[in-house]
Amino acid sequence: MNNLIKDIKAKKSAVVVGLDPRVEQLPDEIRTKYDLDQKVTPQNAAKAILEFNKGIIDAVSDLVPAVKPQIAFYEMYGSAGYAAYEQTVDYAQQKGLYVIGDIKRGDIGSTCDAYAKAHFEHIPTNAITVNAYLGEDGVKPFLKFTESAGKGMYILVKTSNPSSGQLQDRHIEDKPVYMQMAKLVNEWGAQYIDESGYSPVGAVVGATYPEELEAIRKEIPHAYFLIPGYGAQGGGGHDVVGGFNEDGLGALVNSSRGIIFAYQKLGGDYKSAAVKAVNTMNNDINTALESVGKKYW
Amino acid sequence: MNNLIKDIKAKKSAVVVGLDPRVEQLPDEIRTKYDLDQKVTPQNAAKAILEFNKGIIDAVSDLVPAVKPQIAFYEMYGSAGYAAYEQTVDYAQQKGLYVIGDIKRGDIGSTCDAYAKAHFEHIPTNAITVNAYLGEDGVKPFLKFTESAGKGMYILVKTSNPSSGQLQDRHIEDKPVYMQMAKLVNEWGAQYIDESGYSPVGAVVGATYPEELEAIRKEIPHAYFLIPGYGAQGGGGHDVVGGFNEDGLGALVNSSRGIIFAYQKLGGDYKSAAVKAVNTMNNDINTALESVGKKYW
Repeated sequence: MNNLIKDIKAKKSAVVVGLDPRVEQLPDEIRTKYDLDQKVTPQNAAKAILEFNKGIIDAVSDLVPAVKPQIAFYEMYGSAGYAAYEQTVDYAQQKGLYVIGDIKRGDIGSTCDAYAKAHFEHIPTNAITVNAYLGEDGVKPFLKFTESAGKGMYILVKTSNPSSGQLQDRHIEDKPVYMQMAKLVNEWGAQYIDESGYSPVGAVVGATYPEELEAIRKEIPHAYFLIPGYGAQGGGGHDVVGGFNEDGLGALVNSSRGIIFAYQKLGGDYKSAAVKAVNTMNNDINTALESVGKKYW
Repeated sequence: MNNLIKDIKAKKSAVVVGLDPRVEQLPDEIRTKYDLDQKVTPQNAAKAILEFNKGIIDAVSDLVPAVKPQIAFYEMYGSAGYAAYEQTVDYAQQKGLYVIGDIKRGDIGSTCDAYAKAHFEHIPTNAITVNAYLGEDGVKPFLKFTESAGKGMYILVKTSNPSSGQLQDRHIEDKPVYMQMAKLVNEWGAQYIDESGYSPVGAVVGATYPEELEAIRKEIPHAYFLIPGYGAQGGGGHDVVGGFNEDGLGALVNSSRGIIFAYQKLGGDYKSAAVKAVNTMNNDINTALESVGKKYW
């Protein structure tokens, strides 16, 4: 976590750029170059996605510490899309970015070992998202790589979507499911806290539920948070400050469409629009943090 | 579900063969052919896996209604492994098998749409496994394909692993989490029950918890069950009968290693060993069902 935090401070940014490359929203010059208006095939879609991602990564790599490719948008083009995912992760890491594979995997025993090998070895992402409905059997194989290779994970605690409460808000004893899950995250991550004071076993907590975000933050201060739901899903800078500790650290805030497809709102080329959108978001979050005395830079 | 049930009756089998092709356990003739003893690369691993799977599928396609490739064992070889997964699904469907993609995906909104396109369109598996920790936002995009294309899903309810109780057994009001999840499965699937009396929105319930299996069966009689944990994980025929309804239907029982690597215990070539293991398992389950008056053939 030390390295990540150094980069957060150096860039004055707690922003993660979500690489969710919807082919139908790619800019005209890329759609034309790869004939996407004629016919979308896994092959031309994958090539277009990779070129687009490289452009975004080049544009933002000095401005943010991390990117988060959402694997579903690659998987939908099968093995060709999967190759574009591999190459995207590789390119982002070459540019010095911390890469969070948004894969939400979770399985048991040797199956979970296979996922860990897939996403920490074959594709050496720095961290992944994990669904722990199956309990610690679905987490331990990933923790082995925390131990041996410093790999991180963000476990789904309170997700940003409207129906997240269907299970996550229900009460077990005196606490909602999300808080019980947060306590498990805390337990699993306790032994991996480094000199930064943070553990690489983190939590996914949505920006769309600011009260829950603050409550979970207080309950598990050493876990790093990955906060989705900023921008397109409705949350703003003021909604996420509760996810940060008093030291101004402890959270990464993701925006996907709001940055990578900013050109659709702002006009101009997609890279310059992404830069503008990132600068606005960095400023929004840092201003909100400063206003509550949580300056980290 | 009608077609699946016809095939179950015709073959007198409620068995699913799990295609979890661990490279280190592949038979010598395949390891040698693809130089796996020299060096395992994504390319030779993927080729070896595909050849092995085709052999298993050829051997069992007249004896069982379904196969279940576990995608983690393919993902660990990246895009090459992913291609072997695509080709395995395709080959199994050519042989008339119902293919359950064991992918345990679950995400929201357009991300979940992308997973649905990935696994119901690009790779047209008949059904998938789903993790619904995120609530119905993580299920609806899959249900659209139930509506339009008859696709099915098995939602994780009570998994077969030792730590499944960490979350799933905790009580929400007067019922454990797994039962609350079962009720959601019932709700989501109600409108898709066909003339067979079953819904393609099913549940994953482990063979290793026979009492829970029986209780969930009674609570949601119209949901088809996918039961893992037979064989290698400890459950036997007598442990799974509670997962079937009085009509002898309502459940598919999976075995992976116990069938595909049966040659390690039984000797001989791997295809003949798989046939023997399937026959033994069909007989074990059918005998157990008959002994409790749940004959379906």
